[in-house]
Amino acid sequence: MGTVAPPSDPEADPRVKAVFDDIRATRKSDFVNNMWLWLAFDPDLLERTWAEVKAVMATPSALDPLVKEMLYIAVSVTNGCGYCIHSHTASARAKGMTEAQHADLLRVISLAAKTNQLATALQVPVDAAFDANGKQ
Amino acid sequence: MGTVAPPSDPEADPRVKAVFDDIRATRKSDFVNNMWLWLAFDPDLLERTWAEVKAVMATPSALDPLVKEMLYIAVSVTNGCGYCIHSHTASARAKGMTEAQHADLLRVISLAAKTNQLATALQVPVDAAFDANGKQ
Amino acid sequence: MGTVAPPSDPEADPRVKAVFDDIRATRKSDFVNNMWLWLAFDPDLLERTWAEVKAVMATPSALDPLVKEMLYIAVSVTNGCGYCIHSHTASARAKGMTEAQHADLLRVISLAAKTNQLATALQVPVDAAFDANGKQ
Amino acid sequence: MGTVAPPSDPEADPRVKAVFDDIRATRKSDFVNNMWLWLAFDPDLLERTWAEVKAVMATPSALDPLVKEMLYIAVSVTNGCGYCIHSHTASARAKGMTEAQHADLLRVISLAAKTNQLATALQVPVDAAFDANGKQ
Amino acid sequence: MGTVAPPSDPEADPRVKAVFDDIRATRKSDFVNNMWLWLAFDPDLLERTWAEVKAVMATPSALDPLVKEMLYIAVSVTNGCGYCIHSHTASARAKGMTEAQHADLLRVISLAAKTNQLATALQVPVDAAFDANGKQ
Amino acid sequence: MGTVAPPSDPEADPRVKAVFDDIRATRKSDFVNNMWLWLAFDPDLLERTWAEVKAVMATPSALDPLVKEMLYIAVSVTNGCGYCIHSHTASARAKGMTEAQHADLLRVISLAAKTNQLATALQVPVDAAFDANGKQ
Repeated sequence: MGTVAPPSDPEADPRVKAVFDDIRATRKSDFVNNMWLWLAFDPDLLERTWAEVKAVMATPSALDPLVKEMLYIAVSVTNGCGYCIHSHTASARAKGMTEAQHADLLRVISLAAKTNQLATALQVPVDAAFDANGKQ
Repeated sequence: MGTVAPPSDPEADPRVKAVFDDIRATRKSDFVNNMWLWLAFDPDLLERTWAEVKAVMATPSALDPLVKEMLYIAVSVTNGCGYCIHSHTASARAKGMTEAQHADLLRVISLAAKTNQLATALQVPVDAAFDANGKQ
Repeated sequence: MGTVAPPSDPEADPRVKAVFDDIRATRKSDFVNNMWLWLAFDPDLLERTWAEVKAVMATPSALDPLVKEMLYIAVSVTNGCGYCIHSHTASARAKGMTEAQHADLLRVISLAAKTNQLATALQVPVDAAFDANGKQ
Repeated sequence: MGTVAPPSDPEADPRVKAVFDDIRATRKSDFVNNMWLWLAFDPDLLERTWAEVKAVMATPSALDPLVKEMLYIAVSVTNGCGYCIHSHTASARAKGMTEAQHADLLRVISLAAKTNQLATALQVPVDAAFDANGKQ
Repeated sequence: MGTVAPPSDPEADPRVKAVFDDIRATRKSDFVNNMWLWLAFDPDLLERTWAEVKAVMATPSALDPLVKEMLYIAVSVTNGCGYCIHSHTASARAKGMTEAQHADLLRVISLAAKTNQLATALQVPVDAAFDANGKQ
Repeated sequence: MGTVAPPSDPEADPRVKAVFDDIRATRKSDFVNNMWLWLAFDPDLLERTWAEVKAVMATPSALDPLVKEMLYIAVSVTNGCGYCIHSHTASARAKGMTEAQHADLLRVISLAAKTNQLATALQVPVDAAFDANGKQ
């Protein structure tokens, strides 16, 4: 399935080839997954999306690379994006996520969804102590 | 606001008092936030919810306590639970989250929401390489 | 707050007055809640929305009126619609929802959100036994 | 598909076997659906999840078992969890849900989603009459 | 898959046949897509749903038909409804959506999801200038 | 409320001042709304977010500026982001959205949410005719 037809020879377009080459170099792997192939239907969208993913996910920052993958999974599960859950679970494993960490991730994100429902159903008012602005 | 009226003297109920005492002991703080006060309208629901939150969030496990708080925030933001975002951001700060880490958390969860939309809009098929079952 | 300004004298418009009169008659109450006042900025949208709410929620059907209110709450909580949670919790109470039923409702909808996360995170394949079409 | 590989011989683990035996005994059926097989990758997560599902869904409580299944469907549809929709629709049918009740369920949950959008788009302020705390 | 079995000979029911005939006449096409076939399990639900879709989507109104299809896609992507994304992307193309417009649509809806996360994570208070009621 | 305290003198930071100046110049208005003030807690996040919003929303592209605002509203309503709904409804009005167009927008996005629920609840299989890849 799919709502666009990915290009049959994507790397014939030099802008697409440059992005795919950078994906392979950044990841030190020949594998370019379907997300990028499908985005190649619009080279500008492909370039911008990869540039941002590379800047946020593949560049050293305040959070550990594995933590960032697990946060990605948390959002993707909550949004129900099957593709993203599969691809970022694979990435987290490649970055060392153990089975015990995976199970713990599932414990936390499923508990969070549960207590989100409770707080929302009760419409609990926010405690004044939680207001960052009150502390300026 | 709120959809239930929390009990006016919650600790008059010994089951509620036992939970509140355990919250204070576990957190080494006198502060019991509104979530627990509102849940006290049903002592069974209060007991079960606290028992699970304590087991998952306040017990050493495969993931770091701060990482677990950030995962909680990621889910709560995606679900739009204002109360939960406020309370878990406060907890993450109490566990040492820096401003740089907070900004990085926001970069990751907002990028994840963005690429979730792209993968979902394109209905990108999952790569066979991501199927954990194919690898058994 | 609000993204439209509700009409200052809504019942000056005969189409709005007719809807408000029908709301009062159907509910046997003088109270017209804000939802209808805000929708009155467009009489056609007001008429169609009320007609559908009346047909589904205020007309005898295969499900009990209180069950229908609790289903409404379940969807509204999952979508995070604060207004809807408040108004339908009030309606459910008016139709006899007890505190024990309210707590049970919260147990079910929070557990459902939790196991939704687990099934989605694991991308569990649907059992053939659940396919209604296979049984034709 | 799937993000974990379920164990090839799950009942070789006595903790998994005990849960599966209890599922079969509780449901009076030999069928153990995929959700539990996939959760078996982590016996602790399996045990806790089943214990909670059994306590909430398979234990007499303030709400009727069929009503609880329909609430589960309402949340699962709103969260877009295909697996959960299939499994709980099958459970609801097994507990007696008629076609007329199924259609009525769909009428209510789709109308709720619709009016959620309207109230949220208009940012309708909550009526004071709906505040449970104002009535203490 | 599917949670109901669509009727094997749907047009044997005159109410279903009348709806299907109107779908074909309105769209000037022999193709009746699966959504309507599945809804035919309950003729009343089928009739009401088609009547509303026809009134909103196939009747001249303040917004252009293609704009309405793109709005439909925006909601469907955000809700993660795969069926709806496929069917409304096909409809938008049939109404003239170009590849450039499709890419632009994806740029806007993915950016919106991203900044929704940021505003929600920061719990930014609404500016008084945005309150339509303050301007009455 | 808020989960960060915005800087008390944001334009003392030259990076923040440059962004705020560009916002004012792009919009031809002195008004800088709270979103940017709150994002100023991290100048890098502020710069990147504004750069992207400007590129997508304030640069001529394949879609009309008002259409892009309405798509933004559609996503924001579906995600339940109150801040975003208020700010983009104000922007849409500033770009000429009439009351009739606003009502039509609400008709479409609420209908989409409704039929999303129906298609998801029924788990309708995607018609082969909707698969863009089959047509390559």
